[in-house]
Amino acid sequence: MATELDLENETQRERPEETYGLTPEIERAVIEALEAKDKAGVWTLVESLHAADVADLVEHLSGDRRKDLVEILPPTLHADLLAHLDETVREEVVSYLGPKEVAAAVGELESDDAVEVIQELDTKERQEVLGAVPPEERAILEEGLTYPEESAGRMMQREMVVVPSYWTVGETIDFMRETDSLPQDFYDIFVVSPTHQPIGKIALSRLLRTRRPVMVTEIMYQEPKTVPASMDQEEVSHLFLQYDLVAAPVGDDGGRLVGVITVDDVVDVIDEEAEEDIMKLGGVRETDIYQAAVYTSRSRFSWLFVNLFTAIAASIVIAFFDTEIDKIVALAILMPIVASMGGNAGTQTLTVAVRALAVRELTMTNAWQVIGKETLVGGFNGVLFAVLAGAAVWFWFEDLLLAGVLALAMVINLVVAGIAGAVIPIGLARSGVDPAVASGVFLTTVTDVVGFFSFLGLAAILLL
Amino acid sequence: MATELDLENETQRERPEETYGLTPEIERAVIEALEAKDKAGVWTLVESLHAADVADLVEHLSGDRRKDLVEILPPTLHADLLAHLDETVREEVVSYLGPKEVAAAVGELESDDAVEVIQELDTKERQEVLGAVPPEERAILEEGLTYPEESAGRMMQREMVVVPSYWTVGETIDFMRETDSLPQDFYDIFVVSPTHQPIGKIALSRLLRTRRPVMVTEIMYQEPKTVPASMDQEEVSHLFLQYDLVAAPVGDDGGRLVGVITVDDVVDVIDEEAEEDIMKLGGVRETDIYQAAVYTSRSRFSWLFVNLFTAIAASIVIAFFDTEIDKIVALAILMPIVASMGGNAGTQTLTVAVRALAVRELTMTNAWQVIGKETLVGGFNGVLFAVLAGAAVWFWFEDLLLAGVLALAMVINLVVAGIAGAVIPIGLARSGVDPAVASGVFLTTVTDVVGFFSFLGLAAILLL
Repeated sequence: MATELDLENETQRERPEETYGLTPEIERAVIEALEAKDKAGVWTLVESLHAADVADLVEHLSGDRRKDLVEILPPTLHADLLAHLDETVREEVVSYLGPKEVAAAVGELESDDAVEVIQELDTKERQEVLGAVPPEERAILEEGLTYPEESAGRMMQREMVVVPSYWTVGETIDFMRETDSLPQDFYDIFVVSPTHQPIGKIALSRLLRTRRPVMVTEIMYQEPKTVPASMDQEEVSHLFLQYDLVAAPVGDDGGRLVGVITVDDVVDVIDEEAEEDIMKLGGVRETDIYQAAVYTSRSRFSWLFVNLFTAIAASIVIAFFDTEIDKIVALAILMPIVASMGGNAGTQTLTVAVRALAVRELTMTNAWQVIGKETLVGGFNGVLFAVLAGAAVWFWFEDLLLAGVLALAMVINLVVAGIAGAVIPIGLARSGVDPAVASGVFLTTVTDVVGFFSFLGLAAILLL
Repeated sequence: MATELDLENETQRERPEETYGLTPEIERAVIEALEAKDKAGVWTLVESLHAADVADLVEHLSGDRRKDLVEILPPTLHADLLAHLDETVREEVVSYLGPKEVAAAVGELESDDAVEVIQELDTKERQEVLGAVPPEERAILEEGLTYPEESAGRMMQREMVVVPSYWTVGETIDFMRETDSLPQDFYDIFVVSPTHQPIGKIALSRLLRTRRPVMVTEIMYQEPKTVPASMDQEEVSHLFLQYDLVAAPVGDDGGRLVGVITVDDVVDVIDEEAEEDIMKLGGVRETDIYQAAVYTSRSRFSWLFVNLFTAIAASIVIAFFDTEIDKIVALAILMPIVASMGGNAGTQTLTVAVRALAVRELTMTNAWQVIGKETLVGGFNGVLFAVLAGAAVWFWFEDLLLAGVLALAMVINLVVAGIAGAVIPIGLARSGVDPAVASGVFLTTVTDVVGFFSFLGLAAILLL
């Protein structure tokens, strides 16, 4: 089944041009037109692309070419381009455009996209851009920026359709037909109490299919899950995933409706949060594919620095057994096997635990159950690999006792790896530390130290 | 900023009961009611929960308790429960309910959810369930199952609103008011050509705000991105992310409209696909948190088995230098440092590259650029850590030449790690192999072998 599926993937991947606007051919043509300083040619090529594809094009170009392209792009594209660009590249593009152009572009975006663009500017640029935005819009943007980063307040859109609870379906439809300032597209309308608390949600399809004199309160979905504006975006995406939400009202501290979050905003957050977890587990702060080598080296340094201490700790453990290694050189040859297997088995457990914590499948209710199971899994595989690795060593060094020492150390380290792989992330999560970012280094310290200590220690006792 | 944010997270995480229905208290109360065989008590507790929370409750319970709860749940809950359950637990619940109950539940689900439940049953169960479903629905489900697993055809919903291109807004609204068989909630309607090809999409909000005599073709969004039914779900989620889609028509081989995929279906896929990548990078096939220890051990075995060969390969490299280690025991003590730092630096690069390939930020167009940059990053950090680790070794062993050997080996291994971390996933992706699943083992083989070989080899040349 898996092979069939991979073949499926294959055929899809070979012809991405069928569904994506930006093909390698277009990229090449744009580069040629840029080099020939053929502005009209670039415009024609870019015109055929979706703004998201133009953003990809800008991201793929390097250095001067990127600057050249941005400077000749039609200003009508600036708003959508900024909304679709990767953060690192956006900063660069903002500097090419200058505050006035950016302010004009920001004015065209919906409030959530505008806040997203502005929040990433440095203080000076932000002041300049805000200064160039008309006062009304500036007030909305500045209010948006008062919410914490990565919070519901930043994700939400202020443009929404809100009706009082004493209205009928007919009044609501007439209001929507006659008002000009409504959002471009919307899917749900919200019913509020006199104190502006959201008390219901109506899907447009339902509204459309109901007779005019019916009260909105009769057809509304009651008690929609109101998201507090200060809620973290990860939490928001959980709510949407858990309850299959399409739109959720956002309330301020007093529970008054201040905005709406729709599922299409959540799509990006889910993608971002998953990316964050992948990066953290790999010891990287964020995707740095568009960053310069110097910045990338600097941001990866800290993780490697921590790992240097771990590695030295492991070496110190080995140093305790220098006389044993001096006598039996086979110990030096074989000692990385136990440590490496422990590291890998522990990483398996860790990965499952970190993800399960993130999606709330692992909670404090079933924590002990999971730890127990992982200990068992470590034990099963520990015994299996003790036999396999032991047999290999017996065959290689023709020394049954040496093979036995390795086998015993393997069981010990794989059980410890199972326990540590579960306990470390659970413990970190309980203490309020992000398990994705810190678990790995603790785990490898444990599996290296225990791996070397158990193998060399047992050798010292049993072989000498 | 980061600290403030973490505190934000903290306060949110401490009070999940405010937003989630299932609290530890309710879990405990349900367990008590189950143990007291208090069916009415369980019903009352369960009634207050959303179906998604009931699914979580069923997932959290172990063994007999899970069976007991499922058997006394009201049948009205079965459909939603099945739709929300994790795959492993769903199989178990299906066996408790039996084919008739499952068939009844499946009949209540929308076509995409129903296919999702049925596709995971084994052949015998599937036949039994399909046999108990009314013929019309069975035909729809069987057709859904003809599409490849994880394809757009499996994700799509057949229930949708489709109008011919010669209709007016008024005719469309009247049709929606008068027809009973429409989906419960919908957001976009599709306009088709006489040959049933999707030629346009209209957001309900736009329809509502347009005068009745206007033609649907005048207000429709033209040329919606039609997704082929055979497209892989990962590809579908890319399209939605790339172009901020809310709904996309699905076409069969002839391009005829057969269904619709909405952004809320895509949310789950994005989550699933990210989870798959996280798991594969961690050497695990799938989240196995709800699996029994025996199955988990078996599924994790193969990855560890491959790693055993890697570890033995590294040991063989060390064995070449047994005389050197015999003479200078410090070599054995220090050799894991270089290998470990290389493994970690390589994993950083690998993680970024695998993710960038998955989200199409890394393509064959910028592959060389990325490889060049990662080589540079490896070089920068190689030099930095050569100095740091060299200084530590000089201080520890008071041997400048030994420190120099370690430093030189560190530079070599970190540069190699940077190159390998980029080249391996790119190469695998080009050959059509999933880079997430296979890159790690290749990488650690390279960094271990090069790490040990460069350090011990340089020592053999320079120290003896």
